Amino acid sequence: MAKEIVGREENYSLWYNNLVTKADLAENSAVRGCMVIKPYGYAIWEKMQAQLDKMFKETGHVNAYFPLFIPKSFLSKEAEHVEGFAKECAVVTHHRLMANPDGPGVVVDPDAKLEEELIVRPTSETIIWSTYKNWIKSYRDLPLLINQWANVVRWEMRTRLFLRTTEFLWQEGHTAHSTRQEAIEETDRMVQVYAKFAREYMAMPVIVGKKSESERFAGALETLCIEALMQDGKALQAGTSHFLGQNFAKAFDVQFANKEGGLEYVWATSWGVSTRLMGALVMAHSDNNGLVLPPKLAPIHVVMVPIFKTQEENDRIIEKMGEMKTRLEKFGLTVKIDTRDNLRSGFKFAEWELKGVPVRVAIGPRDLENGTVEVARRDTLSKESREQQGVEEYILSLMDDIQENIYNKALDFRIKNTFKVDDFDTFKTKIEEGGFLLCHWDGTTETEEKIKEETKATIRCIPMEDEGLESGFCVYSGKPSKGRVFFARAY
Amino acid sequence: MAKEIVGREENYSLWYNNLVTKADLAENSAVRGCMVIKPYGYAIWEKMQAQLDKMFKETGHVNAYFPLFIPKSFLSKEAEHVEGFAKECAVVTHHRLMANPDGPGVVVDPDAKLEEELIVRPTSETIIWSTYKNWIKSYRDLPLLINQWANVVRWEMRTRLFLRTTEFLWQEGHTAHSTRQEAIEETDRMVQVYAKFAREYMAMPVIVGKKSESERFAGALETLCIEALMQDGKALQAGTSHFLGQNFAKAFDVQFANKEGGLEYVWATSWGVSTRLMGALVMAHSDNNGLVLPPKLAPIHVVMVPIFKTQEENDRIIEKMGEMKTRLEKFGLTVKIDTRDNLRSGFKFAEWELKGVPVRVAIGPRDLENGTVEVARRDTLSKESREQQGVEEYILSLMDDIQENIYNKALDFRIKNTFKVDDFDTFKTKIEEGGFLLCHWDGTTETEEKIKEETKATIRCIPMEDEGLESGFCVYSGKPSKGRVFFARAY
Repeated sequence: MAKEIVGREENYSLWYNNLVTKADLAENSAVRGCMVIKPYGYAIWEKMQAQLDKMFKETGHVNAYFPLFIPKSFLSKEAEHVEGFAKECAVVTHHRLMANPDGPGVVVDPDAKLEEELIVRPTSETIIWSTYKNWIKSYRDLPLLINQWANVVRWEMRTRLFLRTTEFLWQEGHTAHSTRQEAIEETDRMVQVYAKFAREYMAMPVIVGKKSESERFAGALETLCIEALMQDGKALQAGTSHFLGQNFAKAFDVQFANKEGGLEYVWATSWGVSTRLMGALVMAHSDNNGLVLPPKLAPIHVVMVPIFKTQEENDRIIEKMGEMKTRLEKFGLTVKIDTRDNLRSGFKFAEWELKGVPVRVAIGPRDLENGTVEVARRDTLSKESREQQGVEEYILSLMDDIQENIYNKALDFRIKNTFKVDDFDTFKTKIEEGGFLLCHWDGTTETEEKIKEETKATIRCIPMEDEGLESGFCVYSGKPSKGRVFFARAY
Repeated sequence: MAKEIVGREENYSLWYNNLVTKADLAENSAVRGCMVIKPYGYAIWEKMQAQLDKMFKETGHVNAYFPLFIPKSFLSKEAEHVEGFAKECAVVTHHRLMANPDGPGVVVDPDAKLEEELIVRPTSETIIWSTYKNWIKSYRDLPLLINQWANVVRWEMRTRLFLRTTEFLWQEGHTAHSTRQEAIEETDRMVQVYAKFAREYMAMPVIVGKKSESERFAGALETLCIEALMQDGKALQAGTSHFLGQNFAKAFDVQFANKEGGLEYVWATSWGVSTRLMGALVMAHSDNNGLVLPPKLAPIHVVMVPIFKTQEENDRIIEKMGEMKTRLEKFGLTVKIDTRDNLRSGFKFAEWELKGVPVRVAIGPRDLENGTVEVARRDTLSKESREQQGVEEYILSLMDDIQENIYNKALDFRIKNTFKVDDFDTFKTKIEEGGFLLCHWDGTTETEEKIKEETKATIRCIPMEDEGLESGFCVYSGKPSKGRVFFARAY
């Protein structure tokens, strides 16, 4: 192996950290809880961004940019909102440094204290709705469908690369509507965009559902989400879409003149996904050899490793690879020829496996003689010898196969690890093994909290799709239940 | 006029602000010195980003992301650097709010004081070089060619939309090299990328040159720049590329093993352009009717305005426009049909002029009869009647014409407003009229400062291109000079 990573079974958490750092996705920075996203990791994030941005624009949204800083008083305007975020706010109090009068270095200049402290945005509802107040006058100004790509800061005590970091990158959509119904439809539309993205691009199956009251976004009337199951049996919330009702419109006094000339408060939604998706991508598909990237998000689709003894062999192989590269690039694939001359091919194989490149091509002297190449798939770790003639079309077709296979494998895993459970003793045993427990619940926060206390499991979502709509009796209280909900331990 | 803007001659500064806000590019936010970039403005920025990003990648760079926060002690490690930025730093001192014990709202929790204050990055050399220390061990790790798209904060006392804001968006390239020569070549390569972008995409002529010592970036050995002339005769620095020598490598102890096994400090560059380019774009081309956007950066290339009396006419016109739109979109153009039914066409014409859309198409009932359309150019404000047949090809060709015409007009303006001046009395008179003064300078900071004191003009750059290489005598001191430099008052 190029770089040793600990086994997934041995220590899942360490395996994840090993993967993220050794595959050059990200690393911890000198600033507590903040990460550096390295070029290879950032290239995947750029692919995610490009596709999501396209999907947002196809659904009528435009991008804009709002300030990083939020005046402290703004945050307080929506009561639940400030309650939800106050404990994790980075606060700017001064705007100048000065030479240290008592020694070397610089100190904060006490004369440069701000009149009102500024919060580094943990999310932008308040600054955006204070702006929308000036933009929305009439029903003709609605709907307002705006998205922002930005960094946000939430001061987390326990952080993990991508999954929970003090600063993270995300997009946040903030829309304004003239009717409740239209805002609800938007909330649903965007969670479905996220589900489609997760399934078709990340090859990650997700459950679409709504959150229970206690898990809702601070300030929302309803939070919809996509939930995925990781390979250790824990759930991961991968995206949320909030119906905010008129809460923020009321907090910032945003009213519009309707067609009849009356004044009404505006209806709102917000929705976001973040660099947390990178963590989900890693945990959903990777194995003990490293990352397994779905072709649609892989920065490199095909890596080519020459196997040679003499320089003359090497030259001929590289030339052949150059021809293949040109043809593959015409199909829109990204190809890298690994020409490094100081590394053995075995080392290179391991390194590209670690980095999750979907297809590896190797050519040796015998291949040159026989007109063959070795084609290896990262997802199955299988390899085969193919005729050079037409191999580019074959490799192109592999991309679809791999994308589909990764998805099916993850779906299979989720199906095998989703259990209908009807009594609490089984619940307590089963939850130790991980997976989704699909159970009846009486709908009360009290029951939800007791289950959480006793098992560390939370309601991941109340499904919006077909599964689990039969009525029954709560797994904990025995009281009547309208339908099953998904419980799991979660990231 | 849709929205009145003040005349350029009357009050240039107000004209600029009117344009930026009324054309929906940006506005001031509730946070002092921070702007909101509105969707129309952000769409232009996205086009700039996409093109620059492409050019960076074509020159071998990759993107990454580094933390927003910089520990205070890092900033102090490079002496000139901290000197340059200490006075404009937003400082995070606390990480939590709490309910106000004495009343409503929230206050900063005094128990949540950070051990070491964090600076919101004004630029990222220090955090990046502290990271590079771990990434660079051997000559094989070099060059490292990384760019970051990010927000930065510099606490400015006097701000203006896009030109000087407390928070702004930018890209910052940070590269590491094994030799001085390679770093110098990179510095030059990137200023040339900026020049090409300014000329070919922004249609903005620029002078490429180096800064005098007093105008260099804090911590650089050499700063290269592109300088443009605005329509009020003031210069604007539109992009900079810095040769940092080994300053940051020494401050953060970044050494590499060379081929011979010896240890050497790494050579560095950094380079950036920001949302300031948006201000430059506005000021370089706009007129009293509003923005004039170069087609290569225009979010909308063609706007179509129907002119009708009856609904039936309107339907037929919109149908015809839909057909044209489809054909224009096949050429890669973005087309908007303005179907708003509550506005007069005159109002619409003025609004799209204000927004700088390169080509306007109008179709009225008589056009339907005659098989004609009216095609208007934003840059020349001319209009003509054309046969519908083949008009799409004509409009496509107009895009190139307009792009070229805008550039030539700006170049013409600069040529007419660049003066060789050889005595200081003429200098003092001429500088009042604006423009570039191309003068001999004795090369001393002392002379530079005296000229600045007496005239408010600074050396914008020492040109790297052919012009002005004859030797002569300093316009101020009369001492020998090796070549002319560009003086101007500047933004």
